[in-house]
Amino acid sequence: MALAPSATRSNQPVMTAVEKQAKVVFQPSGRRGTFPVGTPLLDAARSLGVYVESVCGGRGICGRCQISVSEGAFAKENVTSTADNLAGATDAENRYAELRSLPADRRLSCQAKILGDLVIDVPTDAQTNRQVVRKRAEAKAIAPKSAVSLHTVTLAEPDMHVPRGDADRLREALKGAAGLTDLAMDPALLPKVQTILRQGKWTVTAAIYSDAQAPATVTALWPGEKTAVYGLAVDIGSTTIAAHLCNLQTGRTVSSQGTSNPQIRFGEDLMSRVSYVQMNPSKLPDLTKAVRDAINALVGKLVGDVGAARSDILDATFVGNPVMHHLFLGIDPVELGGAPFALAASDAMILNARDLDLELNPGARVYMLPCIAGHVGADAAAATLSEAPHKGEDITLLVDVGTNAEIVLGNRNRLLAASSPTGPAFEGAEISSGQRAAPGAIERIRIDKDTLEPRFKVIGVDEWSDEEGFDEKVDSVGVTGICGSGIIEAVAEMYLAGLITEDGVIDGSMAERTVRIQPKGRTFSYQIADQGVEISILQTDIRAIQLAKAALYAGVKLLQDKLGTTKLDRIKLAGAFGSYIDPTYAMVLGLIPDCPVDGVSGVGNAAGTGARMALLNTDHRREIEQTVREIEKIETALEPKFQEHFVNAMALPNKVDPFPNLREAIALPEPKELPQSAEGAGGRRRRRRG
Amino acid sequence: MALAPSATRSNQPVMTAVEKQAKVVFQPSGRRGTFPVGTPLLDAARSLGVYVESVCGGRGICGRCQISVSEGAFAKENVTSTADNLAGATDAENRYAELRSLPADRRLSCQAKILGDLVIDVPTDAQTNRQVVRKRAEAKAIAPKSAVSLHTVTLAEPDMHVPRGDADRLREALKGAAGLTDLAMDPALLPKVQTILRQGKWTVTAAIYSDAQAPATVTALWPGEKTAVYGLAVDIGSTTIAAHLCNLQTGRTVSSQGTSNPQIRFGEDLMSRVSYVQMNPSKLPDLTKAVRDAINALVGKLVGDVGAARSDILDATFVGNPVMHHLFLGIDPVELGGAPFALAASDAMILNARDLDLELNPGARVYMLPCIAGHVGADAAAATLSEAPHKGEDITLLVDVGTNAEIVLGNRNRLLAASSPTGPAFEGAEISSGQRAAPGAIERIRIDKDTLEPRFKVIGVDEWSDEEGFDEKVDSVGVTGICGSGIIEAVAEMYLAGLITEDGVIDGSMAERTVRIQPKGRTFSYQIADQGVEISILQTDIRAIQLAKAALYAGVKLLQDKLGTTKLDRIKLAGAFGSYIDPTYAMVLGLIPDCPVDGVSGVGNAAGTGARMALLNTDHRREIEQTVREIEKIETALEPKFQEHFVNAMALPNKVDPFPNLREAIALPEPKELPQSAEGAGGRRRRRRG
Repeated sequence: MALAPSATRSNQPVMTAVEKQAKVVFQPSGRRGTFPVGTPLLDAARSLGVYVESVCGGRGICGRCQISVSEGAFAKENVTSTADNLAGATDAENRYAELRSLPADRRLSCQAKILGDLVIDVPTDAQTNRQVVRKRAEAKAIAPKSAVSLHTVTLAEPDMHVPRGDADRLREALKGAAGLTDLAMDPALLPKVQTILRQGKWTVTAAIYSDAQAPATVTALWPGEKTAVYGLAVDIGSTTIAAHLCNLQTGRTVSSQGTSNPQIRFGEDLMSRVSYVQMNPSKLPDLTKAVRDAINALVGKLVGDVGAARSDILDATFVGNPVMHHLFLGIDPVELGGAPFALAASDAMILNARDLDLELNPGARVYMLPCIAGHVGADAAAATLSEAPHKGEDITLLVDVGTNAEIVLGNRNRLLAASSPTGPAFEGAEISSGQRAAPGAIERIRIDKDTLEPRFKVIGVDEWSDEEGFDEKVDSVGVTGICGSGIIEAVAEMYLAGLITEDGVIDGSMAERTVRIQPKGRTFSYQIADQGVEISILQTDIRAIQLAKAALYAGVKLLQDKLGTTKLDRIKLAGAFGSYIDPTYAMVLGLIPDCPVDGVSGVGNAAGTGARMALLNTDHRREIEQTVREIEKIETALEPKFQEHFVNAMALPNKVDPFPNLREAIALPEPKELPQSAEGAGGRRRRRRG
Repeated sequence: MALAPSATRSNQPVMTAVEKQAKVVFQPSGRRGTFPVGTPLLDAARSLGVYVESVCGGRGICGRCQISVSEGAFAKENVTSTADNLAGATDAENRYAELRSLPADRRLSCQAKILGDLVIDVPTDAQTNRQVVRKRAEAKAIAPKSAVSLHTVTLAEPDMHVPRGDADRLREALKGAAGLTDLAMDPALLPKVQTILRQGKWTVTAAIYSDAQAPATVTALWPGEKTAVYGLAVDIGSTTIAAHLCNLQTGRTVSSQGTSNPQIRFGEDLMSRVSYVQMNPSKLPDLTKAVRDAINALVGKLVGDVGAARSDILDATFVGNPVMHHLFLGIDPVELGGAPFALAASDAMILNARDLDLELNPGARVYMLPCIAGHVGADAAAATLSEAPHKGEDITLLVDVGTNAEIVLGNRNRLLAASSPTGPAFEGAEISSGQRAAPGAIERIRIDKDTLEPRFKVIGVDEWSDEEGFDEKVDSVGVTGICGSGIIEAVAEMYLAGLITEDGVIDGSMAERTVRIQPKGRTFSYQIADQGVEISILQTDIRAIQLAKAALYAGVKLLQDKLGTTKLDRIKLAGAFGSYIDPTYAMVLGLIPDCPVDGVSGVGNAAGTGARMALLNTDHRREIEQTVREIEKIETALEPKFQEHFVNAMALPNKVDPFPNLREAIALPEPKELPQSAEGAGGRRRRRRG
C-alpha cells in the first residue's frame, strides 16, 4: 500500500499536502506521527519503527497485531484520544473476533483505520520480548532478619471440657513457641484454621508477622511443616518495574524480573501522568490497576522461575518516586503536580497486600518505604539505605537521574536531599531522534577528532558500527534512534571533537571539514546515521541536554552550598541511566560536579537493593525511617541561588567551576567564541527556564 | 381450580389417590405439604395458609406472588430441591419478566407449576409486613464509653520546607488532641485525606477507634466539624435478627429494627443449617451472604429512621449462638455439628466491617462478643453481660430458650454454663399444629376445668376467642396454628384441667365429658379449634414438649449439682420465647426449677441489651471477656447424671422434685394412674433420647 506518512518524533506536526490528518502516539515507545485519515494503524506503526508483530501479512488472520486505544485527553501530546477515532471493525476483524475471541478493548491494527487523533497502547504481552529491562538485583548480601517467622506447633485435639476455639488455642500455642506475650490472628485465616489443623493432624506451621509498627499477627498457616517462604521487593519506576523474589529465611534473592510500566500509556513521564489524572479524574483507578496488574504478572513469572506458589509470598516492600508511590496506593497524585507539592502520605507504612489487590498469600503484608519529600520519593530513600551515605565519613553525592533527578548529599554528620527538574531529555524524550533504551537505539558513540566521522553501538547488536558483521546484524533491529546514554556521549564527543563550543553551539564553520555538519535554518546539525531513519544531533537537542544537565548540576551545587563545602569524595549514579552512562562523559558534560574520576561509580538499581534490604531485615526499616526523619529537605525552586548556578551550568562543563580532577584525566578543548553563540545559548535558555 | 391438597404439618406424607405427588416446604414459615404434580405453587401455598401476596387473581400480571427455589439437599425435610422441579415459565410469566423485569432466581408462584420436590423461599420483601418480630431494645440506660471518639483539629497548610505527608501531619495533630502516644491511620482513608483536608479548609473531624486489643487508629474523617456518630448492636438469632442503632456519644438507642433470618430457607433450625452446609459445602458463602445482606437491609432502615447516613456508623457489635456467629464470619460450622463441638474461634475479636461486607462507614470496626462453648454462644455471653449474675450475691438462673437452651447459673462467686438440646418444639416445630409466632397463631389458651372448653387468643387479634368481635376480626388472619407460648399453656392447662396425667398421657376416659377428646389410634387428642384448619393437641405433641422441657430441666439440674445447691433466688428467661411464656405455666410444666414465683421474670432480648452494652462501653467488653474466661463450661452430654435428671423431668412438673414454691402459688392436680401410662411415656422417651 502506498503510504505517505509525515512521521516525526518532535512535538511539531509536519504539514503535508493531504488534507485530513490525524496525530497518533504509540505507547509505550512514545513514538508519534501525523498520518492521513484512512491509514491502517499497522502501517502507521511500521513507518515509525514501532514494533507490532504481524504474521499473516495484514489479512486479519494471525491476531498478533492487537492494540488498544488509550482514551482521554493527553495534555502533553495535545491529543484527545477516543476509540471512535478508529474506523469500525472490518469483516476480517469480526470473523477473527468470533472465531478466536478478541477482548472488547482490543483491535487488530492491520484492520483498524485511523479516523482521528489517537493514543495507541501496544500491549506489553506483545512487547515483552522486545523490551530491554535493564534492572537486575545487585549482588549485595543482606543479613536476614525478616518480619516473618515460621513456627511449627502441635496442638492437643479439641476437648469438650475446655471448649475454647481452635484458632484461640492455636494462638496460645504459638505465643509460647514464639515467646510472645501478645499475638493476633489475621481474620482472613479464621475460616481456614479448623480445616488446616485437621489436614495437618494437629501439627501446623504458622507465619507470624512482627514489625515494630504492627502487633505480632499470625498471617498464614499450613498443615504440617513448612520451611521456605518468600518476600517480594519491588521498585516501581516511571518507565520500568523491577521485582525481586527473596527467600525470607536465607535472605537470598532467588529470581528477578522486570517489565515496562504500563502506565506509560497514560503519559510518558511523571508529570504527564499527573496531568492525565487531573484532566481525567475518573481514570485514576485505571492507572492504579495498571501498575498492580503489571506487578501481579511479574509475581507470576517470579514464582514460576523457582517453582514456588503465589501463596508462598508473605511479605513485600515497595519503593518508587512520590507519584508512583501514590498511584500504586490508589492516591490521587495531583497535589504533587504543583507547589507546595504536598504528599498525601510520606511515612513508612504497613498494609495488607490483599487491600492493594496483590495476588500474594492472602495474609501477606506490604511495607512501603518512606518518601523524603514531594519530589524525592521512597526510591531515593531506598537508594540511600543501599548506599548508606549516612553511615560513613566520605562526603557522598547520590544521584538518581530520571525525569526528576533525586539528589542526596552528605555523610554521617549531615545529610541533605533535593530534587531537580531535569525533564525527560536524559531518557531520550524531547530529543529529535531520541527514544527509550530499546533495540535499535544508539547507546554509545565515538567521534574521530581528525576525520569527525562517528562510530556507534546499537542496542541489540554486539558490534560497533565500523566493525565486521554490524551491517548484517543491524538489519534485524534497524538504527531507529538514540537513547539517553547515547545522547550524553554524542554531545560530550562533539564537544571534545571541537564540533560545539563550551556554550553548546554547533560550530557551522566545521562544515568545511565534514559533510555531517549541515545547516538547519540559523543553526547546524551533525548527522550520525542514515540507515532508513536519519539520526542527527540538532542544535535544539543540545539545548535540551544543556537544560537538563544544568538543572541537575544546579541542584547539586545548591546542596553543596547548604553543606558548606565543595569537597566531594564519591559520586554514586543510581538507576538504569546512571549504570549506562560513562562517568567521564557525564563529567565532561558537567552533568555531575568535579570529583576524583575513580570516585565516580554507577551503583545500578540502588533503589531495588534498598527495597530488598528493607524486605529482609526489619532493622533496615528502622534505619531508613530514622534517616529520612533526619534528612534536611531542600526545595530547589525556593532557593534564590538556583538560577545563578543554573546559568553557569549551561556551559560545558561549567562557566565558573574549574573541574580540576576532570582536566587531569582528560584534555578539554580550548574555549572558542562563535559569532552566534550569545544568541544561541544564553538568550534562549533564559526564556525557557522559569 | 379444583385442588386436592393433602396438606399436613407433620413429617409423615399423607397418601392420596393421585399417583404423582411432590413434597413442598415453604420457608420461612416452615409449612409443608404433599401436592399433586401440576399444582400451581400459589395454590399450594394458600392451602397451607402460607401468606403469598397476589392482587391480579393469578393472572401473572401483578408480580406480587414472587418466590424463589432454594436448591440443594435438605436432610431434615428429606427433600432434594431444584429449580427444575418447577415447570418452565408460562407466556404470562415471560411477558411479565420482559415488561417489568423479574430477577433470574424469581418465579411467579401463580404461574409456576410443581413438577417435583421443592423447598420454596417466600422472599422477605414480600414477608416483611406479615412477620411479627418481637425483638426490641430493652429500656436500659448504658453509660457511654465508646471505642470511638471524635476529635476536631485544624492543620497548618502544607509547607515545602517541611514536606511531610498531609496524612502524617494530621496524625501528629490528632495524637496531640487525643493525648495519644501512638496513632495509626486506616489505609482506606489515605486516598481521601488530602481532599477532605482541603474541603474543610484544613479543619477536619476524625473518628479515632481505640480499644484494648487494637492500636488506636483514625478510622474516619470529615471536613469541618462532626458531632454525632452511631454504632450498631446486632443479635443474630436463628429465626430473627434484631438490630439497634445507638448514638455513640450519648449512649441513646435511636432506632431498633428486626427482620427474619433469611438463612431459614437453608434450614429451619441450627442443626438443619449445619447439615445443609455439610451436604452442600459450596453453599456456605450463600448462608453467609444471606445474613449479611439482611443486616445491610436492616441498617438501611435504621439510618432511614433517624435521617442518618450509613457512613455515620463507626462501630458495631454482634452476638449470636455459635452457629450464627460462625456463619456470619464465613466460617464453616460443621465442627459444631458433632462432638467435640469444636469452635473455630471463641475469643472476642475486633474486625473491619468492610471485610464482612457490611455497608457501614468504610472505616467502621466490628466487635464480636466471645462465645462461651460449642453450644453456648456470644448471645449467652451478651445475656450474661446484661443480667450480670456474676456481679450479685443472688443465685441466678439465666435461660435463653431456643433450639438449644443456653443456661447460665450462679452468682459472683461462681458461674457455670451449659447448653441443653431442647430441639425446636418450643418454637412450634415438631408440633402437629405448630407454627412460628406469626399472625394466626394461637399464643394463649385457657381450659375451663368444668366444661373442659378452651378459649384462646390469636396473634393479630386483640380479643380472646370467646369475646365479642373475635369472629369478625379473626377472618383477616385465620386460626392457622399454635406457637411456642401457646403450646406451653395448652399442655399446662390440659394438665391442670385433669386432661393429662403427670406422666403426660392424655386421659381417654375424659372423652366421656367432652367431645374435644378424641381417639387417635391407641392415643387421644384434644381439639382446640377448627376454623378452616383443625388445631388439636396430639399425644405426640405432648411428648415433644415433655422431651424438650425435660432436656432443659436436666441441664439446669446438672448445673445445680455442680454448684452444690438447689437454692435459687432468681430465674431470668431471655429471648422472645422467654418474654411471652407465663412463668407460672413454665413452672407447672416443670420447664424451669422451683423458685419463688415473683423471682421469675422474662428479661426480653437480654442478648441484644448485652450487645448494646458492649457497643457503648468498652469496659463492658473487658467485663464480659473476663467473665467468659472464668465461667465453668459443663458439657451436659458427658455427664452421667444427665439421663437420670432427664427421666425424672419427663413428668409434670417432675417425678422427684417437690416444687414447694409452685404448690404454694397454685393447686396442682392429684396424681392419677392410667392403664396405658407406662407404655405411653417411659418406654418411648428412653428410645428417643441418646
